[in-house]
Amino acid sequence: MADPLHFDIDGARLIADLRALAAIGAFETGVDRVAFSDVDLEARAFIAARFAEAGLAVERDRYGNVLGRWKEAERAVLVGSHTDTVPRGGWLDGALGVVYGLEIARSMRDAGLAPPVGVDVIDFQDEEGTFIPCLGSRAFVGALREEELAAASAGGRPLGEAMARPELSGEPLRLDPDRHVAYLEAHIEQGPRLEATGTPVGVVTGFVGIRRVFVTARGAADHAGTTPMGMRRDAGAPLFRLAAWVAEAFPKAAAADTVWNIGEMKLEPGAANVVSREARLTIEFRDTDAAVLDRLEAMVREEVARIDAASAADLSLVVPTRIPPMPTAPAVRAAMADAARDLQLGSMEMPSGAGHDAMILAPHVPSGLLFVPSIGGKSHSVEEDTAEEDIVRGCRVMARAVARVIASA
Amino acid sequence: MADPLHFDIDGARLIADLRALAAIGAFETGVDRVAFSDVDLEARAFIAARFAEAGLAVERDRYGNVLGRWKEAERAVLVGSHTDTVPRGGWLDGALGVVYGLEIARSMRDAGLAPPVGVDVIDFQDEEGTFIPCLGSRAFVGALREEELAAASAGGRPLGEAMARPELSGEPLRLDPDRHVAYLEAHIEQGPRLEATGTPVGVVTGFVGIRRVFVTARGAADHAGTTPMGMRRDAGAPLFRLAAWVAEAFPKAAAADTVWNIGEMKLEPGAANVVSREARLTIEFRDTDAAVLDRLEAMVREEVARIDAASAADLSLVVPTRIPPMPTAPAVRAAMADAARDLQLGSMEMPSGAGHDAMILAPHVPSGLLFVPSIGGKSHSVEEDTAEEDIVRGCRVMARAVARVIASA
Repeated sequence: MADPLHFDIDGARLIADLRALAAIGAFETGVDRVAFSDVDLEARAFIAARFAEAGLAVERDRYGNVLGRWKEAERAVLVGSHTDTVPRGGWLDGALGVVYGLEIARSMRDAGLAPPVGVDVIDFQDEEGTFIPCLGSRAFVGALREEELAAASAGGRPLGEAMARPELSGEPLRLDPDRHVAYLEAHIEQGPRLEATGTPVGVVTGFVGIRRVFVTARGAADHAGTTPMGMRRDAGAPLFRLAAWVAEAFPKAAAADTVWNIGEMKLEPGAANVVSREARLTIEFRDTDAAVLDRLEAMVREEVARIDAASAADLSLVVPTRIPPMPTAPAVRAAMADAARDLQLGSMEMPSGAGHDAMILAPHVPSGLLFVPSIGGKSHSVEEDTAEEDIVRGCRVMARAVARVIASA
Repeated sequence: MADPLHFDIDGARLIADLRALAAIGAFETGVDRVAFSDVDLEARAFIAARFAEAGLAVERDRYGNVLGRWKEAERAVLVGSHTDTVPRGGWLDGALGVVYGLEIARSMRDAGLAPPVGVDVIDFQDEEGTFIPCLGSRAFVGALREEELAAASAGGRPLGEAMARPELSGEPLRLDPDRHVAYLEAHIEQGPRLEATGTPVGVVTGFVGIRRVFVTARGAADHAGTTPMGMRRDAGAPLFRLAAWVAEAFPKAAAADTVWNIGEMKLEPGAANVVSREARLTIEFRDTDAAVLDRLEAMVREEVARIDAASAADLSLVVPTRIPPMPTAPAVRAAMADAARDLQLGSMEMPSGAGHDAMILAPHVPSGLLFVPSIGGKSHSVEEDTAEEDIVRGCRVMARAVARVIASA
C-alpha cells in the first residue's frame, strides 16, 4: 500500500457547517426536514453551494440527490449520507455524513493535494422514507422501480407532485463502477454501545438481517366468569407462553450481537372479563449472520408447533419480513479500523441494527460505515446529540480512512 | 317441614308466554330490549297484564320494576328476574325467571291453592346495566344512591330523561322483610357446564367474588435494532413472564371452580421494532371463597415483586376491583336440590360466575338461584338458546322449590 495522503480537517469549520445546516428546518433542539419539504430543498441548495465553494462540480438530479464531483480525477472514493430527517428529528442523523464528506474533500483541496483518486461527496434523498426508504441511494444504484415511484405518497401527497419542482429537473445520478472505487459513510450510532464503552468510533461489520415472525392464535371468546377453565379455548395463554419461551430460549441460541424483540401484541376482544378469541404477536430478530436467523426461525417454528399441539387454541405463523444481512467490505472496514489506530484512537467492530444508504450501496461497490457515539443512544428525536469533540474526532478518523482507501486504490 | 303444596305448571302456556315476550323487541333470533327503551316498557306492560290476569295485584314503580302481589297472603316467597336485555341479546336472559314466577303463581291460583305464604312475582329493571347494573333490584333493597341516579346516562341520554314517562310514576317498590320470606330466581346458566354434563338444573352455591390485579411495567422505548439486549429496559418481557407464570401457578393454588383470565394486555408504543416503554395487563380471578382470592392475590404480589427485582423495568400493581363473594342461602339451596330430587331429576351445585339480581337480594333476604342449561354456553347474543324441554323442566323444579320454601316458612 502506498503511503496515505497527509492532511487535516478543520474541526471548527465542520461544526460551523453542521450548525448552519441544522438551522434550516430547526425544530426545538432538533430539525424537522422531511424529504421534498421546502426546508429539505433549502438544505440541499446549501450543500450544493458548499460543494461549489470547495471546488467540486455540482450535479443534482430529479430525486434531490446532490453530488459534489472531484472533477480533476477519473476515479473517486464516494463519501456521503443524507440530509433529510424524520419529522421532529435530530440535527446529526444523515447530515453528519454529508458534511464529513464535504469537509474531507475541501480539506484535501485546501492542502493542494491532487491524488489520482479523488473524493466525490453525495447527499442522498429520503433515506428516512417519508416517501420511499433510501429513495435516493436506491435510484443511485438503479434499484428503484417505476411502480414504486408511481405509488409513493406521503400524507396524501403523491411523490410525483412533490418532485414537480424546477430545481428537481436533472437526470438521475448513477453510481459509476469505473469511477467509484468505494463508498464510505459516517453516521451517528443511534444506540448506546460506543458511549457505554467510551469508544470514539465503531466500525460496522455489516447490516443485520431482519426477520419477523407473526404468530396468530385463534380460540373462542367466552365469558371469563361463567366458563370453567377446562372448557376454554383461550387464544392469549399460548402466546404468553411463547413470549416467555423466547426470553428463555433465545439467549442460549443467539449469537453475541443478536437482538430480538416482541414489541407488538394484541388480544381480541381485549377485555379483562372476556377470554381472548384471538391473539397476535410479532417476534422480530436481527443478526448479521443469516444462519443465526435461520436457526432462531426454526426454533420458533418448532415451539409454535409444540404449543399448538398442547393448546385448545389454534396457532399459525407467517414470516412477513426477511431482510437478508449485508456485510460491509472487509477492505473498507480495515481502512477504518487502521485509520483509528493511526490516530491512536480506540475503535470497536459492531453490527448496524438499522438500515442506512451504505446498505443499499454495499452490493454494488465496496462499502463501509463508521459510527460516532450517540449521547444516551437517542436518535429520531430532538434529543439526539453527539459531543462536538466526538464529531470532530470521528471526522478525523473518516478522513484518514478515505486517505487509506485512496492510497490502496 | 309441612308437606309441600301439590300443583303442576303448564309447560305449553309457559313457552307461549316466553315466545310472546320475545316478540317484543325481537332482533334476528334474539331480542334487543335495553332498559327504558320503548320495547322495554312494552314488555313490562305485557308482564303487568299477565300478572293482573293471574289475579295478582300489579304495582309498578318509577324505575320500571313491576311487582305482581299475592294479595290474599300476609307473607310471600318472591320469585323473579328481569326482562331488559343487552343490545342484540337473547330471548331468555332474565325473561325466563320472570315468566317462571308468573307461571308458578298462576298455576297455584289455578289449582285453587290458598297457602298462608303466597308468591309475589317481580320483574326488575336494568339488570344488564344499560344505565346502572341491577338498578331495579338495588333500588328494591335500598342500595341505590341518589348521586348514581343523577350521574347515570346511556349513549348521552341521562337516566332522569329516560325515567320521565307517565308509566314510570309509582313510588319505589321495596323489599318487605315482614312479608318476603325468600327470593328465588331462575336464570339461564350462560356457561357450558350443565349442557356438557347433561344435568337439567344447577343449584347456585354463591356468586363468585371478583378480583382484578392491574400490573404495569415501565421501561424505556429503545430501537429494537440498535440497542443491545443487555442495555434494554423492556417493559414487555417481565409481563410476558408474569402471564406465563399465572398459567403455571394458578392451577396449583386455585380451588376446583376458580376461574382466571388475562384478557387485556397493552404494549406501548406497540411496534415490532421498538422495545416497549410500558406494558400493562389485568389478571382477573373469581371464586366463591374469599380466602382463595386472597391467596391468589398474595401469590401475584410476590411474583410481581420477584420479577421486578430481576428485571430492568419497574413493575407496580394495583387492585382496582374487589367484589366480595356472596353465598346463596343454604335453606333455599337445599329446597332447590330437594325439588330436583322430588322430580327424579339430577342437579349439580355450581358457582355463578356472573352477577344477577339474586346477588343484590342475598344480603337482605334468604336468596337462591337456579340455572337451566344454555345451548353451547352462549348468552348475550342472538344465538342464546335453551331447549324447550329444559325450560319446562326447569320451571317444574322451580315450582317445587317454591312449594318447599312455602311449606317450611
